[in-house]
Amino acid sequence: MTLETAAFTPPYRLLMGAGPSNVHPRVLQAMSTSLLGHLDPSFLAVMDDVRRLLRYVFQTENAVTIPISGTGTAGMEAAMVNIIEPGDTFVVGINGYFGQRLGEIAERSGANVVRVEHELGKPVDADRLREAIRAAGKVKAVGVVHAETSTGATTSIREIADVAHEAGALLVVDAVTSLGGVELRVDEWGVDVCYSCTQKCIGAPPGLAPLTLSPRAVETLQNRTGKVRSFYLDLTELSSYWDRRAYHHTAPISMIYALREALRLIAEEGVEARWERHTTNGTALRAGLQAMGLSVVADPGVQLPTLTAVRAPDEIDEAQARRYLLDQHNIELSGGLGALAGKAWRIGLMGHNSTGPNVMTVLGALEDAMGDQGYETQAGAGVSAAQRVLRGID
Amino acid sequence: MTLETAAFTPPYRLLMGAGPSNVHPRVLQAMSTSLLGHLDPSFLAVMDDVRRLLRYVFQTENAVTIPISGTGTAGMEAAMVNIIEPGDTFVVGINGYFGQRLGEIAERSGANVVRVEHELGKPVDADRLREAIRAAGKVKAVGVVHAETSTGATTSIREIADVAHEAGALLVVDAVTSLGGVELRVDEWGVDVCYSCTQKCIGAPPGLAPLTLSPRAVETLQNRTGKVRSFYLDLTELSSYWDRRAYHHTAPISMIYALREALRLIAEEGVEARWERHTTNGTALRAGLQAMGLSVVADPGVQLPTLTAVRAPDEIDEAQARRYLLDQHNIELSGGLGALAGKAWRIGLMGHNSTGPNVMTVLGALEDAMGDQGYETQAGAGVSAAQRVLRGID
Repeated sequence: MTLETAAFTPPYRLLMGAGPSNVHPRVLQAMSTSLLGHLDPSFLAVMDDVRRLLRYVFQTENAVTIPISGTGTAGMEAAMVNIIEPGDTFVVGINGYFGQRLGEIAERSGANVVRVEHELGKPVDADRLREAIRAAGKVKAVGVVHAETSTGATTSIREIADVAHEAGALLVVDAVTSLGGVELRVDEWGVDVCYSCTQKCIGAPPGLAPLTLSPRAVETLQNRTGKVRSFYLDLTELSSYWDRRAYHHTAPISMIYALREALRLIAEEGVEARWERHTTNGTALRAGLQAMGLSVVADPGVQLPTLTAVRAPDEIDEAQARRYLLDQHNIELSGGLGALAGKAWRIGLMGHNSTGPNVMTVLGALEDAMGDQGYETQAGAGVSAAQRVLRGID
Repeated sequence: MTLETAAFTPPYRLLMGAGPSNVHPRVLQAMSTSLLGHLDPSFLAVMDDVRRLLRYVFQTENAVTIPISGTGTAGMEAAMVNIIEPGDTFVVGINGYFGQRLGEIAERSGANVVRVEHELGKPVDADRLREAIRAAGKVKAVGVVHAETSTGATTSIREIADVAHEAGALLVVDAVTSLGGVELRVDEWGVDVCYSCTQKCIGAPPGLAPLTLSPRAVETLQNRTGKVRSFYLDLTELSSYWDRRAYHHTAPISMIYALREALRLIAEEGVEARWERHTTNGTALRAGLQAMGLSVVADPGVQLPTLTAVRAPDEIDEAQARRYLLDQHNIELSGGLGALAGKAWRIGLMGHNSTGPNVMTVLGALEDAMGDQGYETQAGAGVSAAQRVLRGID
């Protein structure tokens, strides 16, 4: 085998897909700070900063608020494997790929899973969940994806929390594409388990999964009859690691440095101002796409500001267009996922990347990529419509 | 809650404990390169480089050779949760804390665990494993820690592989404190599942767990009757992600950049030269410790070059000495783990940090720390004995 391996000089990409997104240079710089031991007093202070700032971003006072040492999917699995004991019933509202995955992981954790399926692009409906819970009998937990990354639809959480709690069940919320970019109030809304990732609206590289547990969820863990099937993701062990520094695993030091800096940037901006910024830029993007004659997947009123799934015209090879954008513009978009594979683009405006100039850039580039396949739209229509939103005219 | 959080300016530490270790500046630099999408052609090339170089470091041609997106403990859990189906028998040789943990994780994965306990500081004995396997009946897998991080003892793998294979069982080897620092030949020795971490002898920050599966182990996965309980660590899903780029999770891009650069450094040095370097420096350290009248935990002949557990004299408060080293010398040592807590120091010489100058530095500093507690050793005896080894006199 050959061992010669060239120095690494990747192209600079504008990451406008489903994540990772580009991060602020301060985050890259913090990440490359020299290492500390994971039990060093200076690192323990870092861990405390991270927990305090995560509570702010989650809008919670939950004691157990930590980053899991894995990506968003590890956060999803940590939620399920800790809450579920074999034979428990889990009701999941599904309106896309990630709701499906939540059901799959619950099943692997031993749950009887009741799936409440919705059309793509629609939000999960609280009344339909209530019916399913009534029919299911005793329900341990109800799960829903706040911001469905496959379709760009958001689901209102507060009413679903009431539905879960009426039935004595916990509410598990996937906030992978919302935390730090879309209004989310864990305590006020009554969310019991909430997890996310770092590479979308938080503005750090991928590798960690912020997670928070309500006191009610902690009590559920304490009342388990059997051990959690996963040692790595056992939240009781993990919270004693973060609280009392009882050795469990070696925290990914550099990733936690990066997360700390990304959270500092959020605190400097203010989380509500950040939600507002995402809302404005998402609105401008959709106005531009619609002016170009394209059709957004999610229903009006539930369209996410952070991620927009938009249908590619039938005449267009969507993968070829993405390849063109990568090669000619150094811009990454994501393709459709699940039922939308080959039929849609997914455009992210998340964290550091949610800016007006990026909205213009991606609309102009998409016009060019479609033109490259002979599909002409009215020149500049997308950019112009977006500009009107950004200037506050529309 | 207060959101004001100071800029991060940690002290520079020389990390001479059980890991993380300091890394080469090139690794930090690679890690902070701007992000690519996880399906970008340029990132796919990075993934291929990492797999090719990992095969070299593991000394294997195994197709399934990948980094798991979690720390070493995630690697251990991935090994167990994929190989074990509920009710399978797993025989584990235990000679310290991490062998215990392997048994614990196997149990959570549903195994009947047969523990073959050994005294601390001794290697795992192949004959005792053979007896236990005979008594146990049908055995799915045998597990052993190559380099026990709690005691600094190494176990010979080749004979144990024969014992496992005679019984039709797979051999699982924990190489957390050996991979890249201690001779390890996965194919030649007949190891079926081998996992490690990145923050010890590989020379990258913590956050990934390199793992390799023999064709026999892959066949075992293919013949499973039930799904793997973990989706995040499902090696069949993960290998199709690394092979065919089927979406599974978002790889921790920056950590993989860091791993690539660390592996390039290993290839430049040559893995055998690297083993030799660790052997020399480990020998020098032990010579110095013994010249200072200190007693190494592991038996002669099985002492690891990468990590040395050494008993603190009865008169010494070992935690106070470590605190002194941190405050006065900016040097981190680790304390004892498990049965050795409060009684021993663990000194690492791993990867980038395994150097002659670091051996001198830590011996001199330890002399000072013991002197601070009124425990005087012959001045310079440790450094002098180490120097003789490094100069090739002893």
